[in-house]
Amino acid sequence: MTLAVRYTRARTLDTAPALIAPPGPGEVELAPSYVGICGTDLHIFHGDMDARVAAPAVLGHEMSGRVVRVGPGVEGWRPGDAVTVMPLRWDDSCPACRAGHRHICRHLDFIGIDSPGAMQQRWTVPASTLVRLPDSLPLDQGALVEPTAVAVHDVGRAGVRDGDRVVVVGGGPVGVLIALVARAAGADVRVVELNAHRRLLAEDLGLTAWDPAAHDIPELVARWTGDAGADVAFEVSGAAGGVDTAVEVLCARGRLCLVAIHPRPREVNLHRFFWRELTLVGARLYDRDDFEQAVTLVAHGTVPAQRLISKVVPLTEASAAFEALESGGDVMKILLDCATAPQGAAV
Amino acid sequence: MTLAVRYTRARTLDTAPALIAPPGPGEVELAPSYVGICGTDLHIFHGDMDARVAAPAVLGHEMSGRVVRVGPGVEGWRPGDAVTVMPLRWDDSCPACRAGHRHICRHLDFIGIDSPGAMQQRWTVPASTLVRLPDSLPLDQGALVEPTAVAVHDVGRAGVRDGDRVVVVGGGPVGVLIALVARAAGADVRVVELNAHRRLLAEDLGLTAWDPAAHDIPELVARWTGDAGADVAFEVSGAAGGVDTAVEVLCARGRLCLVAIHPRPREVNLHRFFWRELTLVGARLYDRDDFEQAVTLVAHGTVPAQRLISKVVPLTEASAAFEALESGGDVMKILLDCATAPQGAAV
Repeated sequence: MTLAVRYTRARTLDTAPALIAPPGPGEVELAPSYVGICGTDLHIFHGDMDARVAAPAVLGHEMSGRVVRVGPGVEGWRPGDAVTVMPLRWDDSCPACRAGHRHICRHLDFIGIDSPGAMQQRWTVPASTLVRLPDSLPLDQGALVEPTAVAVHDVGRAGVRDGDRVVVVGGGPVGVLIALVARAAGADVRVVELNAHRRLLAEDLGLTAWDPAAHDIPELVARWTGDAGADVAFEVSGAAGGVDTAVEVLCARGRLCLVAIHPRPREVNLHRFFWRELTLVGARLYDRDDFEQAVTLVAHGTVPAQRLISKVVPLTEASAAFEALESGGDVMKILLDCATAPQGAAV
Repeated sequence: MTLAVRYTRARTLDTAPALIAPPGPGEVELAPSYVGICGTDLHIFHGDMDARVAAPAVLGHEMSGRVVRVGPGVEGWRPGDAVTVMPLRWDDSCPACRAGHRHICRHLDFIGIDSPGAMQQRWTVPASTLVRLPDSLPLDQGALVEPTAVAVHDVGRAGVRDGDRVVVVGGGPVGVLIALVARAAGADVRVVELNAHRRLLAEDLGLTAWDPAAHDIPELVARWTGDAGADVAFEVSGAAGGVDTAVEVLCARGRLCLVAIHPRPREVNLHRFFWRELTLVGARLYDRDDFEQAVTLVAHGTVPAQRLISKVVPLTEASAAFEALESGGDVMKILLDCATAPQGAAV
């Protein structure tokens, strides 16, 4: 029997048989190998997104896997191909799509939130969402391509250039990936992160990490930049203080890329935006170019995905993994291993 | 005797002899003809900027006039030349200057705020600040070049393109000038303004003006744009509600240009910036290119400066003019006429 992990209600996951139907026209059936647990998955687990997520819901959108079979009319894919998925379906007719911004489609179907995701042993998706992984890339690392695509998109939106001085506020998985991608673009990067374990990991990756509880960050940035300020800041913390820090560290004409979700309005120092002619840029998701670049960065080891993976647990232990992440322990990315989940485990 | 109007303390202007010293090396002595009263002058008059303004202070930075005599080493200017002034002095050494953003110099001397301004019958300024006015341009209209340069700068910062749909929130002098400059750039423009007199003036200029007290502005914008939203919004109101409106009306990847001064932090819907990938751009002052463009726009009548001038009063009646503007009456721009101020009026 093949299994699916489902969100049923706040803080509760169950395990059920995966629904297997032959792939329809244009569809492909995959066997997910690894699925990462993302911050959004945690929000859903908390129950914060019950208005959007129709329970029972199979979560998961950071994945790697192999093609099992292809539906009618699908070309270019064969069973056994290693893939990841760009989990977006758009309507191609709303104003955002017509303007060419399909990833911010007004009626976006984010697969894994709005429709069934990858935390199961069989998963059917449109062939158009597939992104090929090189055979040389271990599949556990392939599951990091999706969050890396987020980072590629963010760095692109911020217009990071060679020689820029960049501050990343928030050193979780996305923050560290942004720091690595910005560094690969030629930037000099500082990561601001409260959690000592995450700072250590960032330092292990050759990044400089600062503790905002121990230091006056704008002061450190002023010293670092000869009083000019940073060219770019990324707000990845989701905290009010993170916004303040990101605004305060920027140089004249500096760019703030807003990555984190701030569900409620935040007080923002608009006078500073006026006075220094700052720019704030919202960044959401990615497009196919971002995904292709992310595959290259992970495959070449520019993004050392392996070192961001804290733990790999069987799919059937998803519940405990969510709890571990929720408790905010010393972890970065936890992957669910779908392939080795015990066949026929208790439903 | 030549006169100067001086700010001495909150809500108080006096009249004193203008200080006339021969222009030093690189300086030029001007006879101001007309000086506009700007929102910043009103802030000073309120006493809101006493920490920055060293009283007694001669205000005024929106002006036109003629060269009276030139100091040693000044080339290219002769007595009688019609000019306006770009009232900025920078240190050329701070990080912003070194990065090429001299108008946001860390130690900017804004002439008319930080050093003596144009509300006097003789005014000595660096020759480098002079901007030539065409002989064909009436000097009262020349006094509108400076606020027009602000509008040119703002429209440039917002990246307004031919065919853009633009919402200007706030229809005072700067808002209307932005609307006119954006229209000249090929944009379709709507002005949002509470004051009926100002809406009428905007309509007289061929603009469409909406009353936010009578209409749901985002709803009007949705209908106007086929539910897409506006490409660009300018926040010129300085009000919290103005920020909300400007954010809410924007399309996917829309740009918000922040023109107004918001002294205190404002609650901003950052989620919308993320969700629609919006951009916020701060805009302050201008550079020489903006000034040159502004001269052309006013001289060609693209910006019909004459129609923005509500009233011209003698320099010696500055106090009453400030009071009139402060009471928020049905006026746009009031000019002080420096040339016809009674000689030898009571000091």
